[in-house]
Amino acid sequence: MRVTRRASFSAAHKLQCDHLSEDDNKRLFGKCYNLHGHNYDLYVSVEGDVDPQTGLVVNFDDLKAIINRIVMARMDHKYLNEDVPELKNCNPTAENIARVIWKWLVVELPTLVEVKLVESENNIVTLTP
Amino acid sequence: MRVTRRASFSAAHKLQCDHLSEDDNKRLFGKCYNLHGHNYDLYVSVEGDVDPQTGLVVNFDDLKAIINRIVMARMDHKYLNEDVPELKNCNPTAENIARVIWKWLVVELPTLVEVKLVESENNIVTLTP
Amino acid sequence: MRVTRRASFSAAHKLQCDHLSEDDNKRLFGKCYNLHGHNYDLYVSVEGDVDPQTGLVVNFDDLKAIINRIVMARMDHKYLNEDVPELKNCNPTAENIARVIWKWLVVELPTLVEVKLVESENNIVTLTP
Amino acid sequence: MRVTRRASFSAAHKLQCDHLSEDDNKRLFGKCYNLHGHNYDLYVSVEGDVDPQTGLVVNFDDLKAIINRIVMARMDHKYLNEDVPELKNCNPTAENIARVIWKWLVVELPTLVEVKLVESENNIVTLTP
Amino acid sequence: MRVTRRASFSAAHKLQCDHLSEDDNKRLFGKCYNLHGHNYDLYVSVEGDVDPQTGLVVNFDDLKAIINRIVMARMDHKYLNEDVPELKNCNPTAENIARVIWKWLVVELPTLVEVKLVESENNIVTLTP
Amino acid sequence: MRVTRRASFSAAHKLQCDHLSEDDNKRLFGKCYNLHGHNYDLYVSVEGDVDPQTGLVVNFDDLKAIINRIVMARMDHKYLNEDVPELKNCNPTAENIARVIWKWLVVELPTLVEVKLVESENNIVTLTP
Repeated sequence: MRVTRRASFSAAHKLQCDHLSEDDNKRLFGKCYNLHGHNYDLYVSVEGDVDPQTGLVVNFDDLKAIINRIVMARMDHKYLNEDVPELKNCNPTAENIARVIWKWLVVELPTLVEVKLVESENNIVTLTP
Repeated sequence: MRVTRRASFSAAHKLQCDHLSEDDNKRLFGKCYNLHGHNYDLYVSVEGDVDPQTGLVVNFDDLKAIINRIVMARMDHKYLNEDVPELKNCNPTAENIARVIWKWLVVELPTLVEVKLVESENNIVTLTP
Repeated sequence: MRVTRRASFSAAHKLQCDHLSEDDNKRLFGKCYNLHGHNYDLYVSVEGDVDPQTGLVVNFDDLKAIINRIVMARMDHKYLNEDVPELKNCNPTAENIARVIWKWLVVELPTLVEVKLVESENNIVTLTP
Repeated sequence: MRVTRRASFSAAHKLQCDHLSEDDNKRLFGKCYNLHGHNYDLYVSVEGDVDPQTGLVVNFDDLKAIINRIVMARMDHKYLNEDVPELKNCNPTAENIARVIWKWLVVELPTLVEVKLVESENNIVTLTP
Repeated sequence: MRVTRRASFSAAHKLQCDHLSEDDNKRLFGKCYNLHGHNYDLYVSVEGDVDPQTGLVVNFDDLKAIINRIVMARMDHKYLNEDVPELKNCNPTAENIARVIWKWLVVELPTLVEVKLVESENNIVTLTP
Repeated sequence: MRVTRRASFSAAHKLQCDHLSEDDNKRLFGKCYNLHGHNYDLYVSVEGDVDPQTGLVVNFDDLKAIINRIVMARMDHKYLNEDVPELKNCNPTAENIARVIWKWLVVELPTLVEVKLVESENNIVTLTP
């Protein structure tokens, strides 16, 4: 049984590689090289057996509290390139944001099986073990 | 090829374990210990080969009819704790609701591969074999 | 300028008129005569001039705090027929829920111009002065 | 007859008043004082008679082209505080963004009747004449 | 108090004016001159006083039944240019579809106040008296 | 890491098997035997390693350009039964449309792992290798 909790955060970012020239960055990332932002929808999934006593795999409120403490507190209403140390020397693409979130969450959620990040209605990344 | 049909139902429930005290139930389930309700979005998926004659794995209308007869008739506009015998001695968490739906559907849909239940925009469970 | 804040709550209700027989209630309200529930989406709108200093009509966070204190605390994860005194002798239809919310909110939000309540993706009521 | 076209853009902003101290800005705008961003959903509405020859009030493609040229080109993937001159000395709240968009669009769309800006699923502003 | 019911239908159409040449039709309607189709979301709104006995302006089930009988039966899974007599000599633009629906519904719903037709997530028309 | 791009297209189709009688086609496909249409939401997923230099699996803009050139240009605002050669002798069910899209895309996207086609909010098919 898989249990998934959604959380939304609003953040700014710009895509650029330090080792590339401005022209190459513009060519590679297009308008994403400009500072802009998104409402990110994050879906965190854990898997486990249903506890026969409680009928729960995990309490949604506990999952929410962990995501709030670990992800929301660090990424919501932040400038990802500057405010998130793990993304400072690493281009904050949707892929890299998802990887940082995975690395953070798996410490407290060993049964983590999927991190899905919806950057916009058209752009989605999904990370699995 | 996987074919998925969505169906929505509105139901009331409250989360509580009979073997726990009122205080422990409140601690464990928080506000979900109160009688409340949801619009549940159910996604039923079956898998199979595409029939080369018809271009179908399964007819969506047949799938709809089965879900209506088996799930909607028993859960839509119901109080899950009282009106659904399979949930009476079993806390009607999203996990347990999904398990009951699976048990019901798999009898008529042997190619069932996933039951996803969206309890609210933030809370989702997914059951696979 | 109109400013609108959305809030979601999950509640149970059943539709019935005390002065009607069980048969008449069933005829009138159909399956809504059964105890069931919904995820309600509430949209609260106020209108006003934009403050030239702050660029705000109202602070979204203030609006959220008022809605949380006045509506969420009384209706989220509640059984509307029993837990909300204003709805006890009054059938908790979407129309009546919206009227109660309006009566509550307008005390603190004198610039209230619209209460929209989305009971399900198909059923919506909108109250204006 | 009202005709409405939706367009989405992703932008960064931070809320702050130049005449306020950092402490007062933080108190007033909370986490919105941080640089962050959104996927904005913009709904532009015009009103007019239906042309009896064409059955159109306005061609959706023309409306799209105008919005792309006037709004998307200036706000999509931009940092609103810096890249939009009209918002430079004016706090880029949802209210002020909507006012700037109105001012821009009404020049080419004299039948403009509503600009609705959805900053997030919970926060919406609507501007009418 | 306004009460709104949503209904969805899937239909095909192509935009063309009989009095125009093929070239002019292509210039005017672009790709909409090709036969194509949509999932239309229709929002029908009526207004009235809340009945103090029942707490209803109108029964959602009654509204649904009227929309099904009058609109769904004639437009769902149809080719609007051919199967709907009222649209045969009249270009089936969103505007004209909304006008036909209004004309049909107002006969049975004298309190009709709005017909909103969402042709796609980006294109919407709204008709009021 | 999986990267998914959404694209929407509007198309007309009718379901019918050439080898069946009109009566059998009606029995099998119901109202889908009529010419009608949909707004299709297509989700294209590729999988790969994140490039340590760029932080990308694939550039969303490149993915969009490929989908536009290969799918949108051939299916958007088209009559699938007539305008798409691959669907001419093959009933354009959601299953068959997804198979044609897969066959087209995999040539340019060898890392393609999923084509999901949402025909309506209730009907979805998903194709994997």
